[in-house]
Amino acid sequence: MHIREKLAQKEAAGEPGISFEFFPPKTAQGVQNLYDRMDRMANLGPGFIDITWGAGGRLSELTCEMVGVAQSVYGLETCMHLTCTDMGQEKVDQALAAAYKAGCTNILALRGDPPRDKETWEAADGNFRYAKDLKYGNHFDIGVGGYPEGADDNDDVDQLIDHLKEKVDAGSSFIITQMFYDAENFIEWVKKCRAKGITIPIIPGIMPIQTYAAFIRRSNWTKTRVPPQWMEALEPVKNDDAAVRDIGKHLIAEMCRKLMASGLNHLHFYTMNLAQATRLVLEELGLAPSDDSPIQRPLPWRPSLALGRRGEDVRPVFWRNRNSSYVARTQTWDEYPNGRWTDSRSPAFGELDAYGVGLKGTNEQNIKLWGEPKSIKDLSDIFIRFLEGKLERLPWSDSPITAEASDIHDLLLNVNRRGFLTINSQPSVNGVKSSHPVYGWGPKNGFVYQKAYLELMVPSDLIDQLIAKIEQNDDLTYHATRKNGDLRTNTNDSPNALTWGIFAGREIIQPTIVETISFLAWKDEAYALGDDWAKCHDAASPSRKLIQQVMNDWWLVNIVDNDFHRTNAVFDLFNDLEIKDFAVELPGKPETNGTAEQNGAAKN
Amino acid sequence: MHIREKLAQKEAAGEPGISFEFFPPKTAQGVQNLYDRMDRMANLGPGFIDITWGAGGRLSELTCEMVGVAQSVYGLETCMHLTCTDMGQEKVDQALAAAYKAGCTNILALRGDPPRDKETWEAADGNFRYAKDLKYGNHFDIGVGGYPEGADDNDDVDQLIDHLKEKVDAGSSFIITQMFYDAENFIEWVKKCRAKGITIPIIPGIMPIQTYAAFIRRSNWTKTRVPPQWMEALEPVKNDDAAVRDIGKHLIAEMCRKLMASGLNHLHFYTMNLAQATRLVLEELGLAPSDDSPIQRPLPWRPSLALGRRGEDVRPVFWRNRNSSYVARTQTWDEYPNGRWTDSRSPAFGELDAYGVGLKGTNEQNIKLWGEPKSIKDLSDIFIRFLEGKLERLPWSDSPITAEASDIHDLLLNVNRRGFLTINSQPSVNGVKSSHPVYGWGPKNGFVYQKAYLELMVPSDLIDQLIAKIEQNDDLTYHATRKNGDLRTNTNDSPNALTWGIFAGREIIQPTIVETISFLAWKDEAYALGDDWAKCHDAASPSRKLIQQVMNDWWLVNIVDNDFHRTNAVFDLFNDLEIKDFAVELPGKPETNGTAEQNGAAKN
Repeated sequence: MHIREKLAQKEAAGEPGISFEFFPPKTAQGVQNLYDRMDRMANLGPGFIDITWGAGGRLSELTCEMVGVAQSVYGLETCMHLTCTDMGQEKVDQALAAAYKAGCTNILALRGDPPRDKETWEAADGNFRYAKDLKYGNHFDIGVGGYPEGADDNDDVDQLIDHLKEKVDAGSSFIITQMFYDAENFIEWVKKCRAKGITIPIIPGIMPIQTYAAFIRRSNWTKTRVPPQWMEALEPVKNDDAAVRDIGKHLIAEMCRKLMASGLNHLHFYTMNLAQATRLVLEELGLAPSDDSPIQRPLPWRPSLALGRRGEDVRPVFWRNRNSSYVARTQTWDEYPNGRWTDSRSPAFGELDAYGVGLKGTNEQNIKLWGEPKSIKDLSDIFIRFLEGKLERLPWSDSPITAEASDIHDLLLNVNRRGFLTINSQPSVNGVKSSHPVYGWGPKNGFVYQKAYLELMVPSDLIDQLIAKIEQNDDLTYHATRKNGDLRTNTNDSPNALTWGIFAGREIIQPTIVETISFLAWKDEAYALGDDWAKCHDAASPSRKLIQQVMNDWWLVNIVDNDFHRTNAVFDLFNDLEIKDFAVELPGKPETNGTAEQNGAAKN
Repeated sequence: MHIREKLAQKEAAGEPGISFEFFPPKTAQGVQNLYDRMDRMANLGPGFIDITWGAGGRLSELTCEMVGVAQSVYGLETCMHLTCTDMGQEKVDQALAAAYKAGCTNILALRGDPPRDKETWEAADGNFRYAKDLKYGNHFDIGVGGYPEGADDNDDVDQLIDHLKEKVDAGSSFIITQMFYDAENFIEWVKKCRAKGITIPIIPGIMPIQTYAAFIRRSNWTKTRVPPQWMEALEPVKNDDAAVRDIGKHLIAEMCRKLMASGLNHLHFYTMNLAQATRLVLEELGLAPSDDSPIQRPLPWRPSLALGRRGEDVRPVFWRNRNSSYVARTQTWDEYPNGRWTDSRSPAFGELDAYGVGLKGTNEQNIKLWGEPKSIKDLSDIFIRFLEGKLERLPWSDSPITAEASDIHDLLLNVNRRGFLTINSQPSVNGVKSSHPVYGWGPKNGFVYQKAYLELMVPSDLIDQLIAKIEQNDDLTYHATRKNGDLRTNTNDSPNALTWGIFAGREIIQPTIVETISFLAWKDEAYALGDDWAKCHDAASPSRKLIQQVMNDWWLVNIVDNDFHRTNAVFDLFNDLEIKDFAVELPGKPETNGTAEQNGAAKN
């Protein structure tokens, strides 16, 4: 969606909007960390994010990649920066093509290195018009930079406003400004812009204060005015980072309040790739989501904004905690399910070796995270620690446990304490308002529902007993599969709706389903993740043997309670199932203390 | 669906099945009456119906037409009779093509006139195999006739069984027998068939007793054995039709019980195009639907079984009481909505002059039915009589008021008493079991929902006031239109789900929607029906003027309450709206008693 439309919607709704700016990090680990941070910051509800242009080979490619990941995996409406003066036509061409392919529809056209003369400005305009030319029609919404306190090569603010007016007249539809700390001066500058006939939205660029050193360095470098009382407040605590952040938060928030009071409806945060300072300001401003004012999610999962994918509104539940993998494994589909799964399901899920599908982290990181389990009980303890919020991820969950799980916390704990390893689950929801802080999604004034769901791993010697118990209850449907491809189910070929919503003036939406073919595709991934976990450990280690044994022997089972008035039934199935040798530790390496028999047993 | 599958499903479910046979009536009025009867008898839940072959030009065409109407409008799985021996190859070809086009997949291949020799049998077999040939692949399921008491030209029952076995071996998959009254003899005959290796289902043909005269005439003509105790029971009351029907019902039911006890699971009724005698037998057998054992409807409306239409599962609510018109106006669509309206909606509804779209009945019949209204109050009284079940139809409703309306009877009466004319409505339903006798539909163990809906006509001078009231309530969406095409609405382009169902192991089904484009198509039909009603009356009559005036001036309004937890809100909107001149009668013809002023007023 074009940023101008996003801004207009917020304006019409009388709600303030926010956006975040990120830049391409220099290391691969930095990129992964930033993606995780973008994912979390998406929950603060930005209308869009900016990715700055990484000058130079690898970093410019990284800009394009980040735009793609933000759009497709994190569903963040993204604005790509282009520095028109120092990119040749060919570079601009490539960047626009990459943005287009990523589903990105917004460009911020910046000067980059300062222009030396009038001709250079026109060249910039030339590139900038290029984004709007016939090749892309009106695909791109174009924003330009604003310089409320002058540029580093030109401190004639009025002349800069004239230049800005030229760019606006050439067709840009929003302005994002440089950082500043002086609200009054900024508000005056906006008035001057308006007086010169600039009517498009002006978005103030806000730089939260992270540390005193960074604050001073940045304001000196950019020659940004600092109101004297800011120095008076910050200087005395300059060695106390926490105090600087706290005072800084209040100063920045106060500035934002003045801006909003002057009629500016949208705040653009220079995050410097960090979350905390920005989040503190938003909380101080009351703009961060809370239980009273939850973020309105369009669907129970984060919709992808990749090209051709905006209509997608049905996904199998299996990848709920592996969003990035689902997007990767379905990225080549010609069409995405819309309304119902059956109509548009593509036959094939992508291979397991695609980027983002494998196990996260290095072997060392993962051993540090999950330790060296030697018994089913050790595995069970890892799952319990994850459920208790003490582990940030599991092989089958990219992110920490969510609020939704807390309502079934005790039920989940009970199942895992018995040694069954839960991969995915949800409680039943019988029609709560779509604004519900945990279960809500979709437009206001709607009602959302879900069926209780449990997916877990079960030892093969208990599978008959479990299935017999499931089949005693007419309302339960299940699939049980195994690494070797065995499949048992009491379903027919039809997908089963797991979540759905009823909204005023709309058709029914059913964004999450359970279905056989995609479960089998997920099965391959789930066992591969377990195998990868096993391989984090030495070949002869008990942990390697234990995890491999579980992956080779245990079944992956999903169970749906189709009576969405209750949750317990699927969890109660496990109350009297006992796992053999629950606490028996596999022996260590043969040369240390194992007997031949024990090692033989461990291999089967 | 093939009859053999229908039979197998019932067999597997351990439920008895029934089917009805009809023949082409001789008059147009008879055809219309039969269609109405087929519609009502569909509610008795036949697994299929048979249409006999009407020998001779018009009647054979009528067979094909009736097969088409039964399949497409009444959604009755139909079996077309072909009398192989007296139809030439070309006739058979035409009949099969017509059956195929109608979506019919079942043929009963009969001998028609008796064969004279072995050659003729083979010819018959030739035609019958023709239905299974490459042209139609396995499209048709072929049944054959069985003669438990001999044929009129051949009383060698054993030889007839040999002939039957030949036909079974040639590929037929079910047998429907001639009528009979002697259960024991029939059961013996079935045993003989089984002993000869005939393993396909044998369906007994049951002839209910309508009158004594018909009973005697028929049994003499067909040389059917009548058990002596039947004559002893019927002869004494032969002049009392009611007593004959009552005793006959018990005799036939007793025979059916014996057949079912012997393992025969399906009863085929020779209805002779009459409903009562068959219905009485079914009630006596406990096979008629009741509140305790309601018929399981697959969808809230009767699905069409026309070719290419079996996947259709979404329709606009507007034609709910004009099913036959909806089928006619959408019959040329390339695809039918499945899952959601938006995906596959065809842009155009057919013209109003198609067969089945216009006003039912002759002018005389309609004036007799609805009288000669002279005031809004008179119109209101007609609608009230319809709501009270005293009128079998209205211009906008082909059938009498349904059970669903009884739950909102008082609310509807109140709105109509105030002079607003209600066209269509439904109460809200917040998740009742899919087996609910009134609101239930779809598979067992599901839950169905609906939003309250009201469609009615409103005088133009009240429309602003009504819309202002509607717009005070965030949960209400509406469309208001007028003969001239004016449209007012607070909806966006999205269809609004009015009914939906949640079922075990399935995606959400939302069979009924409200939507703008189809409402405008319905609007044309609704006003045309009103105009047709006006034209039933003399050009200068007050009734003609009154109805025409209403059609020209009043708005057609639909209102949905999107909060499906309540029904009243849409009806309460009318509580304080007053229609002007509610009881003022339009004057009669000018030459009788009208003044110039009154006539002038009447014209505006």
